[in-house]
Amino acid sequence: MLEQIDLEVSLSKREYEQRINTLQARLYDLAQVALEARVPVLVAFEGWAGTAKARMLGVLTRRLDPRGLRVYPITSPRTYEQQYPWLYRFWLKVPAYGELALFDRSWYREILAERTATSEGSRWRERCDDVVAFERALAEDGAVIVKFWLHITRKEQARRFKRLLADPLTAYQVTAEDRRQQRHYAIYTDAVEDLLARTGTPAAPWHVIPATDKYFARVAVLKTLLDTLEVRLGHKAVAVNDEDQAEGLDDSAAAFRHPGQPDKSRVPATEPSAQASPRLPLEPSGIEVAHILRRVDLSLRLDEKTYSQQLKRLQAELHLLGLALYRQQRSAVLVFEGWDAAGKGGAIQRLTAELDPRAFIVHTIAAPSGEDKLRHYLYRFWRRLPPRGQLAIFDRSWYGRVLVERIEGFARPAAWQRAYAEINEFERQLVDFGTIVCKFWLHLSPDEQLRRFEARQHVSYKAWKLTAEDWRNREQWAQYEAAVDEMLLRTSTPAAPWTVVEAEDKRFGRVKVLRTCVQRLERELGKVSL
Amino acid sequence: MLEQIDLEVSLSKREYEQRINTLQARLYDLAQVALEARVPVLVAFEGWAGTAKARMLGVLTRRLDPRGLRVYPITSPRTYEQQYPWLYRFWLKVPAYGELALFDRSWYREILAERTATSEGSRWRERCDDVVAFERALAEDGAVIVKFWLHITRKEQARRFKRLLADPLTAYQVTAEDRRQQRHYAIYTDAVEDLLARTGTPAAPWHVIPATDKYFARVAVLKTLLDTLEVRLGHKAVAVNDEDQAEGLDDSAAAFRHPGQPDKSRVPATEPSAQASPRLPLEPSGIEVAHILRRVDLSLRLDEKTYSQQLKRLQAELHLLGLALYRQQRSAVLVFEGWDAAGKGGAIQRLTAELDPRAFIVHTIAAPSGEDKLRHYLYRFWRRLPPRGQLAIFDRSWYGRVLVERIEGFARPAAWQRAYAEINEFERQLVDFGTIVCKFWLHLSPDEQLRRFEARQHVSYKAWKLTAEDWRNREQWAQYEAAVDEMLLRTSTPAAPWTVVEAEDKRFGRVKVLRTCVQRLERELGKVSL
Repeated sequence: MLEQIDLEVSLSKREYEQRINTLQARLYDLAQVALEARVPVLVAFEGWAGTAKARMLGVLTRRLDPRGLRVYPITSPRTYEQQYPWLYRFWLKVPAYGELALFDRSWYREILAERTATSEGSRWRERCDDVVAFERALAEDGAVIVKFWLHITRKEQARRFKRLLADPLTAYQVTAEDRRQQRHYAIYTDAVEDLLARTGTPAAPWHVIPATDKYFARVAVLKTLLDTLEVRLGHKAVAVNDEDQAEGLDDSAAAFRHPGQPDKSRVPATEPSAQASPRLPLEPSGIEVAHILRRVDLSLRLDEKTYSQQLKRLQAELHLLGLALYRQQRSAVLVFEGWDAAGKGGAIQRLTAELDPRAFIVHTIAAPSGEDKLRHYLYRFWRRLPPRGQLAIFDRSWYGRVLVERIEGFARPAAWQRAYAEINEFERQLVDFGTIVCKFWLHLSPDEQLRRFEARQHVSYKAWKLTAEDWRNREQWAQYEAAVDEMLLRTSTPAAPWTVVEAEDKRFGRVKVLRTCVQRLERELGKVSL
Repeated sequence: MLEQIDLEVSLSKREYEQRINTLQARLYDLAQVALEARVPVLVAFEGWAGTAKARMLGVLTRRLDPRGLRVYPITSPRTYEQQYPWLYRFWLKVPAYGELALFDRSWYREILAERTATSEGSRWRERCDDVVAFERALAEDGAVIVKFWLHITRKEQARRFKRLLADPLTAYQVTAEDRRQQRHYAIYTDAVEDLLARTGTPAAPWHVIPATDKYFARVAVLKTLLDTLEVRLGHKAVAVNDEDQAEGLDDSAAAFRHPGQPDKSRVPATEPSAQASPRLPLEPSGIEVAHILRRVDLSLRLDEKTYSQQLKRLQAELHLLGLALYRQQRSAVLVFEGWDAAGKGGAIQRLTAELDPRAFIVHTIAAPSGEDKLRHYLYRFWRRLPPRGQLAIFDRSWYGRVLVERIEGFARPAAWQRAYAEINEFERQLVDFGTIVCKFWLHLSPDEQLRRFEARQHVSYKAWKLTAEDWRNREQWAQYEAAVDEMLLRTSTPAAPWTVVEAEDKRFGRVKVLRTCVQRLERELGKVSL
């Protein structure tokens, strides 16, 4: 899913310069509040080689009070550090109550290096457990933990390496490990996705930052960090509109206190002034800026003839794969999510057309009712799991928890926030059991959706498909878009990946769904030949 | 550590009959409160075969409103259940909000069976993770989870099997699996201890119930369940003294509502009356009744001559084992806890007498200060870990968290309660790394302690050892005793076991410490020959 993140977001130098001082001043304020409140803060920077993490640290620390600030560049463990359990060197770097520790690479460096270096990665799961326990212990003790993954494409990384290598003064920065990363970018990506899913917890969440544009990345990192600190330290900035903001910017720049000034300037106001730190008109930073959906190519089309030919072939293959599933006593779960009228029903119909009717079951998931409503939300999906040999198709699914339930407020924030981890755990148990899991998000444009809504209104036998809720959901397009982006990023794992389907053209969408299923099933069950 | 539990605790039939009605009535009340509050309750009964779990369930359910009550006897998975991921059948049995589900055996049956049946137990860790995630998901959704381990000795189990087998009407109850358990009692015990340590969480704690005497076990189970429900449902009983209680008993027995009575009797009072459910004068039930310390044989002694001979030999062996530790680049951690004046210092002195001074380090742990005070409590122990090749001795340790910090209130209840899991995790990481971990509790009687205190007062060069704090700790003997029992039970794992040392006689205590170390080190490093 990482490859789908919008890495072209950027900020002009002018915009950046307008904003950076305010953000840095606000970080200074909050660091002082944390010090007063004796709350330790750990910030971990991970990301592709070439993302200039050291420069990023410089931007963060420039205005900070050096007392109580610790910066740790993390290399491979030194010989003497190998004399101890692997987390020893990180326990030694735990900040004191009130201190801020910044890690240029972190405890994740070793896990990733090990996973990508050895073919087996047998200790992968244990190591992930170790860090989750480590972070949980610190968080329960009151620490704020923020983790960043700075993301660039393989191509961008190559470009940066080239530039670094061209200059003898910077060439040394590109290490053998970095070159390996460049060569095996896809393998690393898999590892990173799995890592984010396994170790992203409410106590210590990951934030993926598009880092192609350094100005954007710096502002996104600072804003994410500030947002987290504001929530955790209970100092929320007052919402202001854009006009107020322009003024706020100047005010705060003027009010900025330099660490070199006399001591009293370091004492934080007991009530930090809201106007010193307006919320910037930037979009929510961090994981929400992934913009996965906005980048889907909705121009993809398939003509009628190609569609018919391919559909026929794929359906025949699916028929054989259904038999193989039964013979091998494996089970499969296909999840369909997508915009209203994106064509979930139509795709499912084509998918199942040539399957043995005993080999599959379709579960249409609406609001829970009856016994399902009276239990943990995962109950209704556990009880609908397919037995060995069967394929279960979910037309909407457990992802409702982080989509409609999140947006309509049916689930409290704490509940849907912990759902990402619960869902990852749920799907992991399925995959451990041998279940094949495919997940589809069917995507179209708001315009195309409108066209389909209107068509439904005018075709009597389709009119039932359109409800008042559909119109209401449409008004919340932007909220859904952000929720979908976050869902795709947090729950796409190598074992249970998401496929975003370009469904602006129904034919293209259906064929992509069927082809993805065939490929996935063939990889698990072996090739079939017609 | 399970073998140290006091299994001889009992209750007379008269006492039992006096109390059981009140407890059952109180359970009825609380079940109604849970129903109203829509809080689901899961109670799991695990334990040795022959502990009459079905009878226990009968006692619990006798007076309960059958609506909202579910009883599930759990057998091995049936063929159709094997068609699904292993937790499927338990998810299907999750009680609805407000319902009470009782499990005669539970999801732990399968884990234990697998662990003890196969030689490898490779999925052990994964399965434990699965159930921890399962229970956490339910608990975060509001469920109350209580888990019991009904404990009897191997001998007692044999006696019960014999009785059952003698009667053709009950002989069928003793299964092949039960016989295996009897034959491999020690292997099962190891598995159970590891299981309790891995899956006992604040959200779903284990309670070990001595089950030799059925009356005692029933009352202990009921009281533990009631205590948990009262805390979780916010209905604490008012503390009453013994006289009040006798009256309370009659009142509540009279006030008992039979489920057969008209419907209005089933509606719980919105404010459950305190006198209907007095706290019984029984001791705290569950894990706290382990009475491990009270059963230590303090009559064990060693004469001077034997002592000198054995000490000399053990010290010579330790010398060689210290070299082996270095040569094999392993590390070791020895933890000494115990009563004031129990002889920790003396034992450590004898232990290290013949070790190469470069091969070990002794850390004396008092109240944290400086940088240690400013961080997570485990920090000061992480940074004192021995490197490969070295042996670190902790004179007092991280267990202060669940001893002095618990009793003096230096740590809040939530903090010391989660410390058991944190400590188990910490020690597991040490053991995973290859560190050898031995833990000693040095035990003596209050009388002997007093004698030593007085001796210290009168010997000038020992007087410094005696402080006002020692006298104060002495007054809290009973509280410490309960805390130590709980600590031993919750943190003794096969990988990092506790050894309780009979230290009433200094000579005996020292030799036991040294011998245990030699045996443990030899098992890990290989035998040494003098």
